[in-house]
Amino acid sequence: MALKNKKEKNFSEWYTELVSEAGANLADIRYGIQGAIVETPWAVKIMRAYEAMLEKEVEADGHEPMLFPTIVPEAYIKKEKEHVKGFAPELYWVTEGGGKKLDEKMYLRPTGESQIFPMYSIWIRSWNQLPFKRYQSRISVFRFESTTRPFLRGREFNFFECHDVFATHEEALKQIERDMIYTENVAHKKLGLPFMFVRRPQWDKFAGGVDTYGAETIVDGKVNTIASTHDFGQNFAKAYDIIFTDQHEKKQFGWQTTLGPGLIRIMAGLIGIHGDNYGLVLPFEIAPVQIVIIPIIFEKKSADVDKKCKQLEKELKEQGYRVKYDDSDNTAGWKYNEWEMKGVPIRIEVGPREVKENKLTLVRRDVKQKEIISEKDLDKKIEEHADALLKNITKKAETELKNSINEAKTFADAKKILETKRGIVRAPWCSIDFDGQKCADKLQEEASAKVRGTLFGKEEKASGKCIMCGKPAKHVVYIAKSY
Amino acid sequence: MALKNKKEKNFSEWYTELVSEAGANLADIRYGIQGAIVETPWAVKIMRAYEAMLEKEVEADGHEPMLFPTIVPEAYIKKEKEHVKGFAPELYWVTEGGGKKLDEKMYLRPTGESQIFPMYSIWIRSWNQLPFKRYQSRISVFRFESTTRPFLRGREFNFFECHDVFATHEEALKQIERDMIYTENVAHKKLGLPFMFVRRPQWDKFAGGVDTYGAETIVDGKVNTIASTHDFGQNFAKAYDIIFTDQHEKKQFGWQTTLGPGLIRIMAGLIGIHGDNYGLVLPFEIAPVQIVIIPIIFEKKSADVDKKCKQLEKELKEQGYRVKYDDSDNTAGWKYNEWEMKGVPIRIEVGPREVKENKLTLVRRDVKQKEIISEKDLDKKIEEHADALLKNITKKAETELKNSINEAKTFADAKKILETKRGIVRAPWCSIDFDGQKCADKLQEEASAKVRGTLFGKEEKASGKCIMCGKPAKHVVYIAKSY
Repeated sequence: MALKNKKEKNFSEWYTELVSEAGANLADIRYGIQGAIVETPWAVKIMRAYEAMLEKEVEADGHEPMLFPTIVPEAYIKKEKEHVKGFAPELYWVTEGGGKKLDEKMYLRPTGESQIFPMYSIWIRSWNQLPFKRYQSRISVFRFESTTRPFLRGREFNFFECHDVFATHEEALKQIERDMIYTENVAHKKLGLPFMFVRRPQWDKFAGGVDTYGAETIVDGKVNTIASTHDFGQNFAKAYDIIFTDQHEKKQFGWQTTLGPGLIRIMAGLIGIHGDNYGLVLPFEIAPVQIVIIPIIFEKKSADVDKKCKQLEKELKEQGYRVKYDDSDNTAGWKYNEWEMKGVPIRIEVGPREVKENKLTLVRRDVKQKEIISEKDLDKKIEEHADALLKNITKKAETELKNSINEAKTFADAKKILETKRGIVRAPWCSIDFDGQKCADKLQEEASAKVRGTLFGKEEKASGKCIMCGKPAKHVVYIAKSY
Repeated sequence: MALKNKKEKNFSEWYTELVSEAGANLADIRYGIQGAIVETPWAVKIMRAYEAMLEKEVEADGHEPMLFPTIVPEAYIKKEKEHVKGFAPELYWVTEGGGKKLDEKMYLRPTGESQIFPMYSIWIRSWNQLPFKRYQSRISVFRFESTTRPFLRGREFNFFECHDVFATHEEALKQIERDMIYTENVAHKKLGLPFMFVRRPQWDKFAGGVDTYGAETIVDGKVNTIASTHDFGQNFAKAYDIIFTDQHEKKQFGWQTTLGPGLIRIMAGLIGIHGDNYGLVLPFEIAPVQIVIIPIIFEKKSADVDKKCKQLEKELKEQGYRVKYDDSDNTAGWKYNEWEMKGVPIRIEVGPREVKENKLTLVRRDVKQKEIISEKDLDKKIEEHADALLKNITKKAETELKNSINEAKTFADAKKILETKRGIVRAPWCSIDFDGQKCADKLQEEASAKVRGTLFGKEEKASGKCIMCGKPAKHVVYIAKSY
C-alpha cells in the first residue's frame, strides 16, 4: 500500500503524509505549539545515528564537546549590533520565573554565538590555547518563524554547532574547507545526499559575520541547506573581547569560524530526496532496523518457519546488525508495507520453501526486487546490498542535483526555468557585494527566488551581462527558491 | 599540589574549588544567570559516558527514545491539580516572541509529565501497545530554585526521564523494581556509587503521584538523591485521558511509572564521594582520559623517551583505550598534579631507566602508589588496575554509606547524631501516611532534617515509639539532611 499522495504529483502533501503517524511516523505535529514537533523513536534513532557521525568527524579534527544553557541573559545579545539586528525579531523572551517578573529577562538561544562568546572572552588568554575548537550537539534552538514545517522550519529545533577561534585569518579560512569536508564525509558519503557548496552574497550572510557558506541540496525543486559555515573574521572577537596574547606578548583579537550542520535539514533531505511513494528509503548505516525478517505462512502457523526466523534473528543480532523479526499477527503484505514505509533497507522472507531448500528471499528497499539466495551467502549478500543501496540512492541524488542546474542568460530564461523545471539557475550576475543587492531584491520580487551564491573553491569565469541590471557580469551565481 | 581547601575540613569550599577552572574544571558558573552553568568538555564527556550506560539499560528493557520540545503550552500544566500545585511556583514563563506578547504563554518544562501525557493520550489506544515505554535523555529542565550549586541544584539542568504505561498496577510496581536495578547496574556497579533505595513518606512524594522512591547516596553527611522513580497509579491517566481498550473491548485507564536518573546528582556523587584532596577519582570506564603517559626527562630532551611514549600511546589507542601522551613543556610534577586533579585512573611514567630496562612506572589515581612493571605486562596490569580502582572506591563508598547510618531511639539521640556524626538516622516513626506529616514538620523545624522514607523491598519491623510524638511506631524510617 503506497502513500495516498504521490511524490511526483503533490510533493508537499506526500511529505506531510510520510512524516506523520499514517506514514513513517517521524514527528507528531499535534503538540500544542506551532513549529514545536515531537520526535518519535524512529526519527530520534535516525537523527542520533548521523549526529554521532558528525560528532566523530568534528572530534577527530580537534573539537571538544561543551554544553551551554538554553536561556541567555538579555545583556548578551546586545554586544554585536548586526547580530542583534538579525536575530532580535525572532527571539522568544522568558520574562517570569518563580511567580514574579524577572529582574533581567532572558531569551531562548536562537543560535549559540551570543551566549558562547562571553565565555570565550573569559577562557581564551594565550596563543597556546589556539586553535580553540568546541562544539555542542543535541541541543535546541528557538526562532519565532511565521511558517513552519517538520524538519524544514521550526520554532524549536535540533541544533549542532562548532565554534572555533584561530590566531590568523588564513587558519580560519582553512577551517571553512574542513567544515565542508565533514559535511561531505557524512551527508554525501554516508547518507547519499550530494550538495553544492556555495559562498553567499554579502547581503545574505550570517548577521554579524564576514562571509557565509552553505551546503545546498535540492528537495522538490527548492534549495534545502544542510549545513552552514561562517567566517566571522574578527567581528565577534571585537564585539565580545575575545583576545589572546600572541608569541610576542602582543594582544590580538581572535579569528573565528562557526559550523552549523543542519540536523533537521539533513532529515528533510533523507525524506525528500531518497523517499518514494512507498515511504522512506534509509541508508543501511543509519537505519534503526537494518534487516526485517518476515515469516511467510500459509494456512496454519509453521513451527519450522518460526524456528528458522528466530535463528536468523539471533545470528544477525550477534553479528551486530539491527534486526527485527516481525512475528506479529498482521498479514505478510501488511508487514511488507509497514517496513517499506519506515525505509528498512533489507527484508528477508522466510517461508516453507525457503526452510526446505535452505534458501532465503531477499528484497532491497530501494529497488524492491526479490532475490532468492542460498542461506550460506547471507552475510555476503547483506554487505553487497547495503553498499549497493547507498550507491544507488547516491547516484540517483547526484543525477537529480546535476539535472536540477540549468543555464540562463536572461531574466526571462531564469524565470521560465524557475517556473517550469524549477531547481537551480546558473546565471551571470553584476556583483555579490552589497551593490548587487538591488538586483537581488528585484529577483526576489519578480521571481520569488534568491541568489544562493557563487561556487566555493572554484572561481567561475563570468561572461555576458547581469540578468537583472544588464551591467557586465563579474560573477556566475546560482539562483533558486528555497525552504 | 593538592587543592587549597581540604575535603575533610571544609567540604563546601573544597567542592566548589574542585568543580571550578582552578580544579578539575567541570563547570563554569560565570555565565550570567544564577544556577545556569556551562559544562566543560571534561564534564560533558563524563556525563555522556554514564548517560550512554543508562540509555543502554533502559533500551535493553524495551524503552524507545523520543524527544519533546522544551517549551510547553500553558494549558498543559493545568490538567492535574496536585501537579500544578507542586510545580507552578518553580515555573519559568515565555511570554513574548517575535516582538510581541504571545497569545498563549508557554512554560519551560520543569519535568516531562505535563508535556508528554497529552501526547500519550493521543498515541495510546489499545492493550496491544502496552507496556508502552519511552524515554528522553540529554535534555534540559528548568526550575526557579532559590539556592543553586553546580550539579546539585540548578535553575537549568541536564535531565533523563522514562515514562511507562502498563495495563495493570502489578506490572507498574514491577517496573519500580527494574528502575532500581538500572540504577544499581550503572551507579553502583559501574560508577562505584552505592545507594539506599527508599519509599518516600506520602507528604514527600512527587506532586500528583501515588508513591515515590529514591536512590539515596551520602555526600558529606547529607543525602544526595541520584535517581527518583514514581508510581503514578492511574492519577495522571485520569487527568490526561490516557485510556486503552483492553482485550474485552473495555476502556481502561493506564497505570503509569516514571524514572528520573539524576544526571547532575550522579556527577555530584562522583565528585563528592570519590574525590579527594588531589582532585577527582574517576572509574576507568567513564574517564575521558583513562591513561596518561608522562615522559620523565632529565636535563635535555631524550629522543628515546619521546619515541617510547609515542609508541605506547599508539599501541594503547589501537587497543581502544582513551590515552593521552602529555608532551607539553610543563614539568613532570606539574603534569602529575594536573592529571590527578582531573581524575585520570592510570599514569604511566617513562624515563631513561624505563626505556633502558623495558619497564614502565605505573601510578593508580586512587592509591597514588608507584609500581614498576615489565612492559610486556602492561595490558594485564591496566586491566587489573582498572578493576582494582573500581573495587577500591566502591568498597570505600559502601563502608562510608554503611557507617553513615546510625540508630536513634529518641529525638534527642537523632538530633545529636544529625549535629555530630551527621549522615542518616534510623529511627522508629508513627506513620508514613499523611497523618505522620505533623511529626515530620516538627522534625524539619527542630533539626532541619527530613524523613527520607522506609527501606524499599524489605518491610522493617518497628519497635518502640515514634521519636517525635511518642505514639507506637509503625515504621522504621531513615532521616537525614539533604541537598
